Amino acid sequence: MVKQELDHIFNPKSVAIVGVSSQGLGLQMGGAAYVESLLACGFKGGIYPVNPKGGEVFGLQIYPSIKDIPESVDYVVCCITAEQIPVLIQDCAAKGVKVIQIYAGGFSETGTEEGKQLEKDIYALARQYGIRLMGPNCLGVYHPEAKLTYFSDLPGESGPVSFICQSGGNSGYVVREAARRGIKFSKVISYGNACDINETELLEFLSADSNTKIITAYMEGVKDGRKFKKVLEEAAKAKPVIILKGGASEAGSRAATSHTGALAGTDRVWDALLYQTGAVRVSSLEELVDMTVTFSFMPVLPGRKAAIFGWGGGATVLAADDCAGEGLVIPRLPQQIQDELEGYMQKGKIGVGLSNPVDISDQVFGTSVYDCAKAVFGYEGIDFIIYHMSADIGHYPTLGKVDAGISVIVEDIIKAQRESGKPMAVAIPFPISVHTQEFVPSIKKIYSDAGLPVYHSLGNAAKAISRFIDYHERKKRMLE
Amino acid sequence: MVKQELDHIFNPKSVAIVGVSSQGLGLQMGGAAYVESLLACGFKGGIYPVNPKGGEVFGLQIYPSIKDIPESVDYVVCCITAEQIPVLIQDCAAKGVKVIQIYAGGFSETGTEEGKQLEKDIYALARQYGIRLMGPNCLGVYHPEAKLTYFSDLPGESGPVSFICQSGGNSGYVVREAARRGIKFSKVISYGNACDINETELLEFLSADSNTKIITAYMEGVKDGRKFKKVLEEAAKAKPVIILKGGASEAGSRAATSHTGALAGTDRVWDALLYQTGAVRVSSLEELVDMTVTFSFMPVLPGRKAAIFGWGGGATVLAADDCAGEGLVIPRLPQQIQDELEGYMQKGKIGVGLSNPVDISDQVFGTSVYDCAKAVFGYEGIDFIIYHMSADIGHYPTLGKVDAGISVIVEDIIKAQRESGKPMAVAIPFPISVHTQEFVPSIKKIYSDAGLPVYHSLGNAAKAISRFIDYHERKKRMLE
Repeated sequence: MVKQELDHIFNPKSVAIVGVSSQGLGLQMGGAAYVESLLACGFKGGIYPVNPKGGEVFGLQIYPSIKDIPESVDYVVCCITAEQIPVLIQDCAAKGVKVIQIYAGGFSETGTEEGKQLEKDIYALARQYGIRLMGPNCLGVYHPEAKLTYFSDLPGESGPVSFICQSGGNSGYVVREAARRGIKFSKVISYGNACDINETELLEFLSADSNTKIITAYMEGVKDGRKFKKVLEEAAKAKPVIILKGGASEAGSRAATSHTGALAGTDRVWDALLYQTGAVRVSSLEELVDMTVTFSFMPVLPGRKAAIFGWGGGATVLAADDCAGEGLVIPRLPQQIQDELEGYMQKGKIGVGLSNPVDISDQVFGTSVYDCAKAVFGYEGIDFIIYHMSADIGHYPTLGKVDAGISVIVEDIIKAQRESGKPMAVAIPFPISVHTQEFVPSIKKIYSDAGLPVYHSLGNAAKAISRFIDYHERKKRMLE
Repeated sequence: MVKQELDHIFNPKSVAIVGVSSQGLGLQMGGAAYVESLLACGFKGGIYPVNPKGGEVFGLQIYPSIKDIPESVDYVVCCITAEQIPVLIQDCAAKGVKVIQIYAGGFSETGTEEGKQLEKDIYALARQYGIRLMGPNCLGVYHPEAKLTYFSDLPGESGPVSFICQSGGNSGYVVREAARRGIKFSKVISYGNACDINETELLEFLSADSNTKIITAYMEGVKDGRKFKKVLEEAAKAKPVIILKGGASEAGSRAATSHTGALAGTDRVWDALLYQTGAVRVSSLEELVDMTVTFSFMPVLPGRKAAIFGWGGGATVLAADDCAGEGLVIPRLPQQIQDELEGYMQKGKIGVGLSNPVDISDQVFGTSVYDCAKAVFGYEGIDFIIYHMSADIGHYPTLGKVDAGISVIVEDIIKAQRESGKPMAVAIPFPISVHTQEFVPSIKKIYSDAGLPVYHSLGNAAKAISRFIDYHERKKRMLE
């Protein structure tokens, strides 16, 4: 039943946006932004802006009331203020609307009795008419398969990750950051105060959803802890569930209550709950994306033994420290492989390590990057590779002139990795200078497009991979 | 004496670069890159490229030998291979050279007996002639006051931070990353294998150097632990000393030995040493820059009580969690201030927190940002402000059109901060999209130019500030 009811949320045949000014896009998110986003994304069904004043927006007629729309409407985006919503619900009932997504705040999150009562009232009213409510105080649904979106720039392609997010802004950040690292989403839901549709129902739905292979979530509170635990247990058995809990601290919890009216619960209870159910708890949006990238692009790893391969003497030392600090193992390469590497190096150059970690600084634009990579990646004593490249450690004018040389190296690394059959993570820091900003993002994209997990620092990569291995080890123990 | 001898390193009257190809800049760092960098930086003294083949490079005559240079030479950059260096040292002695900085590797860091012996030999030879050696296996000195540099893009202006760095690449990363956050350097030394001039001598020099207010260091090992401890104790008493130790792990230590021949020492000893002496230990280059920015731009803070002020409901919740997680205190604002803030907000908008943390999302391009900031920053119950802005949480087309609006907000925030007299940290994540990449870096620059510490995430800001407060609390206890 969950499935059927929520289907209207993800696959509406038509959408009415109530509260659209004919002035077009204002300076804030609002009705016109939804219209613009649906048009930009290519939503196939009817798009019906509504405002009593009528007029036109982005070439679409604005209807005075939802009742004036000539066709049936099953999904309403509501951008009018809280007080006007009860009347709208009645109009929607008359029109046969299935779901109303309420953008406006002014409800329980205000902490006032009026706000709380109004939220209860609209819930009761909607329930009476069999209408499901999303929100209030939320951005709604991004479902690329249906070309449904709330931000015009979110990617049009679907993928295997879904995201239950109690904050609209956080959903924007995560989808955009994940997208540039090759992650595509099936369903993203910004669900706000959750007066009706809540985190638990969404989790249950995504747990059963065959298009969702990985569930990610940002939540500030749950409505029914016992039920949530039961649903989370099932979900985490079925697929990886990565959760960021907002409001872990007293001040954060206070903020969460003002944000979505959520009762944050004590942090220790959350820790225990997530651990017991086998979910992966993360502590920042960045880590949420790092773990999602890892679960998306890393196969199950047979062990913790890493080859560290990259550029720069100091960077190589710190890479080894970062990996060891996260519990990864960096086995010394057999002398035979070190001798082979030595043969590729120029003599008398700046000191390089060949024992693992391997520093290939000597090969900047040299011709033996592929040979070096092949020798290291092929070693049977390692389980996976961490490749790192910091572009801002060298002499710039040289780099500036040899973009083509860098592309060759990228191809060489990927080729050697493919041939070795070893999983590989790629760590490339954010570029600093105008020189490196020109080519670093495109290099990252090449690795992402090749299906490799890309991280913004080696520390992040090592932490995510270590936690990924922990997850699978624990999963195995739980099944035994 | 330390001062006088090292003065030649920082203030040479002329520089000869030995091992410069007339082919100009090759694909790697080398002699020609040094010539190019000195020219680009505007080094005022003589610049003399040397190569037996003669010719010209960047419009400068190449001398066949150092002995052919018509004027006196006090500083030599040596870019020839290890085996050729003993002869060069003798030529330098004849020429009256004071310092030779050796770029080439091939010495103790190779781990071979020949390499170790060669390093001993060149040290003995140089010592015999009274020549100081820097390196081998290092990039040398960046001293903007003297227009001396090894990378052409490093800033020309001087500042109060000095950096002792055993890795040339790490020095490039740190100087560039620090520069875009408003940090200017007095002296940066990439000192490599440290066969003669070493970390301890440099630390002693910088400890006494009146132009150096903050000492930062990346080191992989020390030559004489007992002496280092004594010098560090004095240095840390005189000014903040921030140290990143490379080779903390077994694999990292192995890499350090291959990199600079360093004996890394056990990590626990380092932990104790740095703690006892009152130095600040950091665990990454990013943290090294974060702490440097904090020590540079934060005044001593009277306490841990922060006002968190910024954009986005979910971002605000996580900001509070990050601060609390680092031991900062986020006091609830008095009702009177909350009421004042409430008066500036639009009604019926997405839920915002006003109690601290304060979410000003409601004021996107609104007119009351200054009023809100003034009300919060002025509260006597807070010691400092953390302002945060994530640009990738909203609807893009809107942002794209209102760059001017954003500039106004930036000015408003700075104005309110100035008037309040409260210290302020600024946390702005790396921009994700092409939309935000256009304006975010320039916004960060405005804050940096205003003398404010800028961080790439709120978590980093909170951690650095908390450690900064710890430092001063401990300092106070140590003096008692």
